[in-house]
Amino acid sequence: MANSIYRASVLQSQLLFRPSLSNKHSVRKKSSLLCIASSQFNPIRSEVSFCIGTHLIPHPNKVDRGGEDAFFVSNINGGVIAVADGVSGWAERNVDPSLFSKELMANASSLVGDLEVNYDPRILIRKAHAATSSTGSATAIVAMLEKNGTLKVASVGDCGLRVIRKGQMIFSTTPQEHYFDCPYQLSSELIGQTYLDAVVSSVELVEGDIIVMGSDGLFDNVFDGEIVSTLARHSDVMEAAKALANLASNHSMDSRFESPYSLEARSKGFDVPFWKKILGMKLTGGKLDDITVIVGQVVTSPAAASLNQVQMEEAGSGDTRGLL
Amino acid sequence: MANSIYRASVLQSQLLFRPSLSNKHSVRKKSSLLCIASSQFNPIRSEVSFCIGTHLIPHPNKVDRGGEDAFFVSNINGGVIAVADGVSGWAERNVDPSLFSKELMANASSLVGDLEVNYDPRILIRKAHAATSSTGSATAIVAMLEKNGTLKVASVGDCGLRVIRKGQMIFSTTPQEHYFDCPYQLSSELIGQTYLDAVVSSVELVEGDIIVMGSDGLFDNVFDGEIVSTLARHSDVMEAAKALANLASNHSMDSRFESPYSLEARSKGFDVPFWKKILGMKLTGGKLDDITVIVGQVVTSPAAASLNQVQMEEAGSGDTRGLL
Repeated sequence: MANSIYRASVLQSQLLFRPSLSNKHSVRKKSSLLCIASSQFNPIRSEVSFCIGTHLIPHPNKVDRGGEDAFFVSNINGGVIAVADGVSGWAERNVDPSLFSKELMANASSLVGDLEVNYDPRILIRKAHAATSSTGSATAIVAMLEKNGTLKVASVGDCGLRVIRKGQMIFSTTPQEHYFDCPYQLSSELIGQTYLDAVVSSVELVEGDIIVMGSDGLFDNVFDGEIVSTLARHSDVMEAAKALANLASNHSMDSRFESPYSLEARSKGFDVPFWKKILGMKLTGGKLDDITVIVGQVVTSPAAASLNQVQMEEAGSGDTRGLL
Repeated sequence: MANSIYRASVLQSQLLFRPSLSNKHSVRKKSSLLCIASSQFNPIRSEVSFCIGTHLIPHPNKVDRGGEDAFFVSNINGGVIAVADGVSGWAERNVDPSLFSKELMANASSLVGDLEVNYDPRILIRKAHAATSSTGSATAIVAMLEKNGTLKVASVGDCGLRVIRKGQMIFSTTPQEHYFDCPYQLSSELIGQTYLDAVVSSVELVEGDIIVMGSDGLFDNVFDGEIVSTLARHSDVMEAAKALANLASNHSMDSRFESPYSLEARSKGFDVPFWKKILGMKLTGGKLDDITVIVGQVVTSPAAASLNQVQMEEAGSGDTRGLL
């Protein structure tokens, strides 16, 4: 039983597309805007593409090497975005956890137009994984927008993607994990997961839709409702990505914040010691982590073409930071 | 940062396929099993289909007319399942809210093989909606399984679908609503939503995957974690559907249960009066509602063909109750 008959017209989107080409850098934060326009204009049928803003904030203790997240964006077809998150446990084995994720994304970036990939995100994961020789492991998500509006997504682990339409979340990926804090992961070791373990899904997008992709540093610290409300306050995709990353960063350092991560931990049986419970205390706080946020807005080709568009392809590693 | 390196092999699914052809009826509960096998066997490439169990428990006050939910299942292609939920507010206008949802599903059932529908769930919604002449409105969800494993989903409103793989939820639809308790809805009135408002998504399924589709009577009363744990205890799809519906029914009548519905209500600002809050009371309880549950397990065609399969097509209205 849905109780109420709908009596009013649907609210129009509060998320207007106002591109900005300003590009600010700082030592510890990486932010970028990418407007992708379809290279071919078909007057019969409108084609869609992404306008993308990105922002990366490394873990406070890992600023020197840029953190262990990596990402790339590409203008192939309607646009391709991807995030990988290096598994930090490798540091205990004296392996830099950022090497695997950065090489994985660099390989994915160079393979995205490969004929064999054929615009299939799972095949891109397969080929990028096979080409990665670093020791380590990483979670990874890839999303490819076709010009007809179909967004194809493949994900291994706990990176995530949300779609917001007219101020409502209409689509969300679901993380995969073996147990709490141990996600499915592409690995240099045979025991890890492969492209065959990816969850492959798709969603039909329309002009104005906003997608938010991120590492678990975003989704462990920011609730879905906060993502929606933050997007409502920032119509510029780059500003939206920056605002979401900053919100995640602030929450991650707030020991009293009831974060998605702390709620998940408590639901899995983790909590403060018994004597603290007696005093009314409970497990709270955000999760210190690398935070990567990619915000994309779906635009039609004519609109995108009217912008002073920036076309670029980017592997989000420390080496190429200057580009974004 | 995902912390833990994965060191163990992936647990195998605990959800084994053990079909049962027993079929129990009672006055107020409707339960059924449908094993769908592909009509064509391709020895080169395995094809998938559904084995489906259903269970419907009407709202306690609406048992006489079978409630206001309706559903159908079909063996077209890899299988088609759909649920519609009549908007109860129409009763205030002396309109039986069940008429629209039942006619919508009956029309969808008869149109599912239509050439123009062409196995597109959104087009099926469009044509079924256009063919429906009853006054009223309903939320609706349609899912179509292609033999290659692609599950295509179109949804208007707050019916839902979950996919569980190896004991984990890997895919979930997201409800659409104008405001709390007023979902997007297909309507006899122009002001309602249409197929153009449907969220259209898809997910690649593999053998052994379990899908759970239901009206909000399921998802407002049962948490996702409970769905997963209930499925782990019931390997028979019909028993699983029945168990989920019974769990939802029990929670719906438990005034102290902190249901998804009560948590949602509190998050939207609804709560008990101030004087009750002072006494430490808060808004709790399930939501009395019609409850429809469809559980489907993905099987490969050779396995499905080896069963004593039941092939049927069903509009889940009171008129055809005898069939299920």
